[in-house]
Amino acid sequence: MAKKEEFVKDIANIDEDFAKWYTDIVKKADLADYTDTKGCIAIKPYGFAIWENIQNYADKLFKETGVKNVYFPVLIPDSLLQKEKDHVEGFAPEVAYVTEAGGEKLEEKLCIRPTSETMFSNLFSKWLKSWRDLPYVYNQWCSVLRWEKETRPFLRSREFLWQEGHTIHETEKEARERTIQMLEIYTKIVEDFLAIPVLTGRKTEKEKFSGAEETYTIETLTRDGRALQSGTSHYFGQNFTKPFEVKFQNREGKEEYAYQTSWGISTRLIGAVIMAHGDERGLKLPPKLAPIQVRIIPIAMHKEGVLEKAEEIKKSLEKDFRIELDAREQVTPGFKFNDCELKGIPVRIEIGPRDIENGECILVRRDTFEKVVVKLEELNVKLKEMLEDIQNNMYNMCKKRLEEKTQIATTMEEFEKKINENQGYIKAMWCGDEECENKIKDLTGAHSRCIPFNQEEISDKCVCCGKHANTMVVWGRQY
Amino acid sequence: MAKKEEFVKDIANIDEDFAKWYTDIVKKADLADYTDTKGCIAIKPYGFAIWENIQNYADKLFKETGVKNVYFPVLIPDSLLQKEKDHVEGFAPEVAYVTEAGGEKLEEKLCIRPTSETMFSNLFSKWLKSWRDLPYVYNQWCSVLRWEKETRPFLRSREFLWQEGHTIHETEKEARERTIQMLEIYTKIVEDFLAIPVLTGRKTEKEKFSGAEETYTIETLTRDGRALQSGTSHYFGQNFTKPFEVKFQNREGKEEYAYQTSWGISTRLIGAVIMAHGDERGLKLPPKLAPIQVRIIPIAMHKEGVLEKAEEIKKSLEKDFRIELDAREQVTPGFKFNDCELKGIPVRIEIGPRDIENGECILVRRDTFEKVVVKLEELNVKLKEMLEDIQNNMYNMCKKRLEEKTQIATTMEEFEKKINENQGYIKAMWCGDEECENKIKDLTGAHSRCIPFNQEEISDKCVCCGKHANTMVVWGRQY
Repeated sequence: MAKKEEFVKDIANIDEDFAKWYTDIVKKADLADYTDTKGCIAIKPYGFAIWENIQNYADKLFKETGVKNVYFPVLIPDSLLQKEKDHVEGFAPEVAYVTEAGGEKLEEKLCIRPTSETMFSNLFSKWLKSWRDLPYVYNQWCSVLRWEKETRPFLRSREFLWQEGHTIHETEKEARERTIQMLEIYTKIVEDFLAIPVLTGRKTEKEKFSGAEETYTIETLTRDGRALQSGTSHYFGQNFTKPFEVKFQNREGKEEYAYQTSWGISTRLIGAVIMAHGDERGLKLPPKLAPIQVRIIPIAMHKEGVLEKAEEIKKSLEKDFRIELDAREQVTPGFKFNDCELKGIPVRIEIGPRDIENGECILVRRDTFEKVVVKLEELNVKLKEMLEDIQNNMYNMCKKRLEEKTQIATTMEEFEKKINENQGYIKAMWCGDEECENKIKDLTGAHSRCIPFNQEEISDKCVCCGKHANTMVVWGRQY
Repeated sequence: MAKKEEFVKDIANIDEDFAKWYTDIVKKADLADYTDTKGCIAIKPYGFAIWENIQNYADKLFKETGVKNVYFPVLIPDSLLQKEKDHVEGFAPEVAYVTEAGGEKLEEKLCIRPTSETMFSNLFSKWLKSWRDLPYVYNQWCSVLRWEKETRPFLRSREFLWQEGHTIHETEKEARERTIQMLEIYTKIVEDFLAIPVLTGRKTEKEKFSGAEETYTIETLTRDGRALQSGTSHYFGQNFTKPFEVKFQNREGKEEYAYQTSWGISTRLIGAVIMAHGDERGLKLPPKLAPIQVRIIPIAMHKEGVLEKAEEIKKSLEKDFRIELDAREQVTPGFKFNDCELKGIPVRIEIGPRDIENGECILVRRDTFEKVVVKLEELNVKLKEMLEDIQNNMYNMCKKRLEEKTQIATTMEEFEKKINENQGYIKAMWCGDEECENKIKDLTGAHSRCIPFNQEEISDKCVCCGKHANTMVVWGRQY
């Protein structure tokens, strides 16, 4: 027991210093580390395995809807970036530029992609001829660079991994449908796979993507009640296709500009998982996502037959589960339990000489710490049930917190009081004026998260100015 | 028939202008296109699907040997790059530098990774403590940048996609074994999956990787008899671990520097496939690699029941094969045949009203153009056999060419004559002197490809200087 306390002491107390707890988990659970490239992290095997699982799950869903993967250059000529006014205004301050290469100063500087709307639009304009060619539904998995002033592993790194989908369509209707379709896929990824309930809706003018007509978002809530923008899907209309001349001959034989979308999720989702599910013992991974779903920890490993039995169990389960055996000799079972909890492995199996004698083992759930004695012949079935139950329970725990931390405010006093006491989301009516949006942010630190699809009529007055309002906005402080 | 000729005219004659034929295939088979970023290509869906198949096949083999994927920063501080003398000498001339970011000039310029030995060594030095931590067997799939003067799609792009494995080990022996193990995996990928026989061996001092003790290579031969370095595996000894201080406490409790390897294959393999297998009609893909293994082309599609039958066949095969139905209305079957050949799809199925009546269809092989009438109830079995046969036949065709184009030379006259007449590989003895290596290159345009593992005693005299020689080298002109 002494050992455990010592071990847990290594990570900051989650309720006292959530920010420190977060970076402790990132490092101690071996997800990532800082590097000598300021603001950029190295994603280590355990962290990257989580990302690979997200990639595989998402990529399959994408492809089922006709998405085709491509890879376009990381370097974008500055002149291309400059073509869409709002876009360059939004991104130029964060761009990194290559100015020297091959021992020479470049004639035109090249930016490292912060996002690739300009590169895709430029290439689409070369290829597109007829309505018959449409739609183009392309995606790339790559890294992007945004020169952030303040960084935090996974949540806001200068370089991060993501996927960026870029599509062009024959009609506005089809492009709008694709925008929403991808938002729904993102919802499925985050809710069904990462076990985090999301808030979905449209961003306000102020918060939307630079160059977009409309930005849709999925927002998750952290344990400490802050909002995390966890995926976005943009409808561009013809904002890029006009300056880039992405045009086609339509069914009537006339020239027309295509309708465009883009959408992305990133390694920020790993941050969302840590912050939504983690607890005082460390990371907690939903079973569908977990690179290691089950870890076997032999007790009294030196006793005859224990290690052999543990290996036998591993072999019998490895077809159906992602399973590991912790057979390290230099550390105690207690240390291994802690390590297992720190790394968020959904279930650990304890097996010692007496268990073997009884034809049993002990399953310990990471979400509830509940211990269950299970007959070895039932292990496969029980494990499957338990993992499913953990996945559901983790979702429900977040859902419950989301509900507890979603409040309504009809006045600014109420707004301030509630967000100060409880953090979380505040639902409040808004007149649509950016001045009110700014004022709310200045007063409370809360940004508008989105205009939810599910509108409720809380009142008919703007929470800020009191003027007529028919839009409900969800607000929240953010990471 | 007129249509076909017209279509084929679009690509250069393979025997008259192989270089032009190559870029024609890259563009017309929809693999990739040039971009406004000079020297960088956009890999289009069909090209990227080929790369994804290579990735999946390779990644599985890697993981079976304990490789763990990671992602480390694309930007490397210049001071890190400078730490190993030979390495920086080799790479500095090709590096692209970020000098401005976030609206400011950077204090230290950052290079875009041309390869990541320095970044990995730097991080290994932070993490490594004890022999118990070893080995680290890491890999990343990413893009790298090398500012080449002359570029060619896939073969030599300024930016290209690859995997770079980086490992450190407790002993020299283990590191050397890993170096060879990865070369063997690369051999398997290229021979078994891409159906191209390889030449394997060790690079000479002159041709080895900057900073390596030893470089091992797999070399493929193009249709026109040129060599392509298609994958390399390096043993570094302690060349990086000393300057980067990657050290550990060994089993005797003493400090020791780790032993290191790195190894990589890239999208150049797509170039190797095009150049090894392609013919006058276009690309030719081995079935295991092909994103589309079978394409169904309905004949007289407007006739009742044809399209329905084609769809039914597709449905019945899509569990076992990567299959497509070309149901385009605006083009003729002849156009579709050509398109199928241009894209290198291993088998096409032709089915028309009479075939349906007879309960048959026609299979046409891409490798031999042989046509076979097959009963529909036998289609699945026959198709499987045919694809296997195509995979083997394609390998054997390349093997035959490799043998025909591998010659022996004992004098420089013979060397020059044979390489001028037949291109290909020249086996010749070498004294080990770099002067001779340079002279051979100047006289014949052939670089040393490698010192093959399978040494033969051709003579005991250096082909160039006539002095005593006990090393057989394979030489060849390269892309």
